[in-house]
Amino acid sequence: MSEIISGIAASAGIAIAKAFILENPELAIEKKTVENTGLEVERFSAAVEKAKGELQVIKENALKELGEDKAAIFAAHLLVLEDPELIDAVKTKIQNENVNAESAMDEISGMFINMFEQMDNEYMKERAADIRDVSKRVLAHLLGVQFSSPASISEEVVIIAEDLTPSDTAQLNRKFVLGFATDIGGRTSHSAIMSRSMEIPAVVGTKTVTEKISSGTMLIIDGLDGKVIIDPSNEELGMYKKKQEDYKAQKAEWAKLVNEKTTTADGHHAELAANIGTPQDVKGVLENGAEGVGLYRTEFLYMGRDQLPTEEEQFKAYREVLEKMEGKPVVIRTLDIGGDKELPYLDLPKEMNPFLGFRAIRLCLEQQDIFRTQLRALLRASAYGNLKIMFPMIATLVEFRSAKQVLLEEKEKLVNENVSVSDNIEIGIMVEIPSTAVLSDRFAKEVDFFSIGTNDLIQYTMAADRMNERVSYLYQPYNPAILRLIQMVIKAAHKEGKWVGMCGEMAGDPIAIPILLGLGLDEFSMSATSVLPARSQLSKLSKTEAEKHVETILNMDIAEDVVKFVNENF
Amino acid sequence: MSEIISGIAASAGIAIAKAFILENPELAIEKKTVENTGLEVERFSAAVEKAKGELQVIKENALKELGEDKAAIFAAHLLVLEDPELIDAVKTKIQNENVNAESAMDEISGMFINMFEQMDNEYMKERAADIRDVSKRVLAHLLGVQFSSPASISEEVVIIAEDLTPSDTAQLNRKFVLGFATDIGGRTSHSAIMSRSMEIPAVVGTKTVTEKISSGTMLIIDGLDGKVIIDPSNEELGMYKKKQEDYKAQKAEWAKLVNEKTTTADGHHAELAANIGTPQDVKGVLENGAEGVGLYRTEFLYMGRDQLPTEEEQFKAYREVLEKMEGKPVVIRTLDIGGDKELPYLDLPKEMNPFLGFRAIRLCLEQQDIFRTQLRALLRASAYGNLKIMFPMIATLVEFRSAKQVLLEEKEKLVNENVSVSDNIEIGIMVEIPSTAVLSDRFAKEVDFFSIGTNDLIQYTMAADRMNERVSYLYQPYNPAILRLIQMVIKAAHKEGKWVGMCGEMAGDPIAIPILLGLGLDEFSMSATSVLPARSQLSKLSKTEAEKHVETILNMDIAEDVVKFVNENF
Repeated sequence: MSEIISGIAASAGIAIAKAFILENPELAIEKKTVENTGLEVERFSAAVEKAKGELQVIKENALKELGEDKAAIFAAHLLVLEDPELIDAVKTKIQNENVNAESAMDEISGMFINMFEQMDNEYMKERAADIRDVSKRVLAHLLGVQFSSPASISEEVVIIAEDLTPSDTAQLNRKFVLGFATDIGGRTSHSAIMSRSMEIPAVVGTKTVTEKISSGTMLIIDGLDGKVIIDPSNEELGMYKKKQEDYKAQKAEWAKLVNEKTTTADGHHAELAANIGTPQDVKGVLENGAEGVGLYRTEFLYMGRDQLPTEEEQFKAYREVLEKMEGKPVVIRTLDIGGDKELPYLDLPKEMNPFLGFRAIRLCLEQQDIFRTQLRALLRASAYGNLKIMFPMIATLVEFRSAKQVLLEEKEKLVNENVSVSDNIEIGIMVEIPSTAVLSDRFAKEVDFFSIGTNDLIQYTMAADRMNERVSYLYQPYNPAILRLIQMVIKAAHKEGKWVGMCGEMAGDPIAIPILLGLGLDEFSMSATSVLPARSQLSKLSKTEAEKHVETILNMDIAEDVVKFVNENF
Repeated sequence: MSEIISGIAASAGIAIAKAFILENPELAIEKKTVENTGLEVERFSAAVEKAKGELQVIKENALKELGEDKAAIFAAHLLVLEDPELIDAVKTKIQNENVNAESAMDEISGMFINMFEQMDNEYMKERAADIRDVSKRVLAHLLGVQFSSPASISEEVVIIAEDLTPSDTAQLNRKFVLGFATDIGGRTSHSAIMSRSMEIPAVVGTKTVTEKISSGTMLIIDGLDGKVIIDPSNEELGMYKKKQEDYKAQKAEWAKLVNEKTTTADGHHAELAANIGTPQDVKGVLENGAEGVGLYRTEFLYMGRDQLPTEEEQFKAYREVLEKMEGKPVVIRTLDIGGDKELPYLDLPKEMNPFLGFRAIRLCLEQQDIFRTQLRALLRASAYGNLKIMFPMIATLVEFRSAKQVLLEEKEKLVNENVSVSDNIEIGIMVEIPSTAVLSDRFAKEVDFFSIGTNDLIQYTMAADRMNERVSYLYQPYNPAILRLIQMVIKAAHKEGKWVGMCGEMAGDPIAIPILLGLGLDEFSMSATSVLPARSQLSKLSKTEAEKHVETILNMDIAEDVVKFVNENF
């Protein structure tokens, strides 16, 4: 008898294959005396070389499949294995103390890990994590233990794991890994976002997959409905193969829309844009036929480094995106750091509630050197495409006016330096703080556009941390209060002739799309892979019909009623 | 020349006296060999006895001035000094190792502190803090160092400190401590709240008082305007003595209003209630002529203990408050724990953003045994006065309906047990989450009343932790977005014939009061000491006039404009 586990549908599609359990093996290290230390050093060197070879392959694979920033993780791992301080210390220990390679490696790496972990600096703490990963890899080779690394997979499987780390997802080979299911995580967790960008069917937050599934068990991952079917019957297999075919056919249907405009059944145009994190992501944007970049998160430029990016580095990245987008609109958001995203070289104080803390524009207005460098890079890049600049976490008009003032000052300086700067840069803000939504009629007189950041807007409006599993039931995009705030913002903007986009997860959500259409949203910005399904959905919807339903929806009591209504009426 | 330091006016009034610098002395412990260990043990015992004597006095003083819960801190300190595990270990160390008492005490207490601190349990960590306090006190006696404890003050002073801890404020003797000023803190920090309830003039958040002021310097603390004047000139002294007299006269004027109704200049009645934390606080409520209790925070019943309070304990506390209030309305809020207020015996998980986490009604709906016990105690107490029950942190109608359902179930059980329960208990909610304010028209159909909790409503609406100094500039009660949300709630309630109270700091704020009157707020609940000033202020305001100004205010851009307008027009 098959068993069905429910979870959160994280990435669409159906995968059918045997389970591959991804777990960190327990490495039992015994300290032994060795006679021939020369041989033991050789054994150690061989293990290091094997680990290096593996990492080289993983790195190249990551570079090909996932881009530079993911590959950098493994470049860092390789550097650890080339570090004489670590490697020579192990060899010396073997020779001087007549101990086996395993215990020497374990003790020396443990010492380094401790040292780095005790440093009060996030960057150094990450180094500790690198050493731990690498040391495990070498020890696995020494012990002859199978290190269940996703990179080692060479037959078609679905991965079952408690969770997938960035280092795990960077190793996934799409040829063999057909899907995955995890115990923890939600629609916006790292593994879920990665699964969508890799277009691998995934179900997360099942709580029990690792407990209930053993290696080699036949599985179906239903990423459309959030189900994992264990040991499916022939009937179920048949049903899901059909579902898989249907989904493939639907994808083919979507693919035909790549070069189409987005038009509703009653002839209204809505703009579909994509969210990106690095210039490499533009490839996916164009392949999926997005009409622009609705959100370029610039944080990646600042992360995984030990100093601030220079004006020149930033200018190159921004210019690259603008050039590749060939005149299509590109909304670049200024630095949104702090909160959960820490920068080691900034040494920000630990906060009790980082989501309600010193971050984004709050930080930029105080540490203006960082802000001005970014604004200069943006202004210089503006000559190479259709740039719109957006400030994050604006809570008051005082903040917006201050940020705009700084931007205008930098523009004037550049003009005086005879640097060419576009004269048509729109300046907008994220609407992700309730105060700004409530006061959007006042803001609309001064900004050029709004982009509603639903991820944060929902978490502040409901007072519920979206990363906290215990209150995740309150992360309610369809709560009528959220929909009313969105309506307020759109009405206020349109009254002043301004446009409104949305760049949270909600913009690509099939339940939300009909409501947002009815509310009059101008631009929907989402994961690139959601663009074509959204275009297909919109082409079947009537804007006039959607508008008629809006008042009914906004007068509902609870999110559950809204979902029911949308399912019945659209 | 005098110097003036600005800070936050935390508690009204003028204090003029010499500075008493409250600091933790550095205790330099030297390890020495002693010959006569018998004499050394005696010296140690004598120091312990002196410390005990001191603590006894402090404890009794706290009991008299501040109530049982504050005195309990010192009862705990006394227990530490009676703990044979600690005291005998020190004596044994002196005798066995021939070391001096200071180093023995320091090492043994250090060991205990370490042990308790490493436990993953807040209650045990507090024990570490107790041992640290007590150990310092004993060491100060051994070293002959003056331990600048506020309890030791025996002449009129104003206290200057970085901050005041609960243990410090518990020791303040109002006879000698005329006022205080601190480097850190805001209007809602512990020391600020204590200063108001003790009616001691205070200025907090000055950043520099401890740096700029030395012991014995003549000072003026201006708790009305948030200033500290160092070394005042004769002219300044004269001016401030006049200001002090005026304030005293004003207080005498206020005192006359104790038995008056609260009536505006144009004859409108507004209800002025007080916020309380324990049954002892009712005394201040009655002395200040409040017309009811607008918020009884029940958290204190659950704090500073190692197990949940029983139904009987709670029943007694609730009944005491209801009886003492003699039929005047008493709004009791169900448990608002979690977030920053931890309960050691509940073992709640650490959260990244506790203010957006698993707390208050979220916790009560999941751990229903705790909730049901409290509701039974409340229902039983309802027979003894005019009880209204209020649920905190309601974000959705689903939550309200669930909480009400549980309440009705417990009521039915009690009725079946023949326990007498009032049939006229109003059931309301705190409006402190933006979603609830935005959807207040839907809530108003189901609740009996709203009480707007501005402290939280402001922090969620502005997405700024009010305890975080770096974003405290965003804690803006006068931001038009906040005022609009308040208007939404009041309009929605009145449309359904329900009443609206406010129980945040804002309700007693002289700048906010005219606006709230204009918005139609029905009940203002504040610190007991703010009731008479508020009654006096309201008696001079016209509601009709205030109503006229409301639309202008709600269409302003920024908080600064609102403050300016209120100062000019009321």
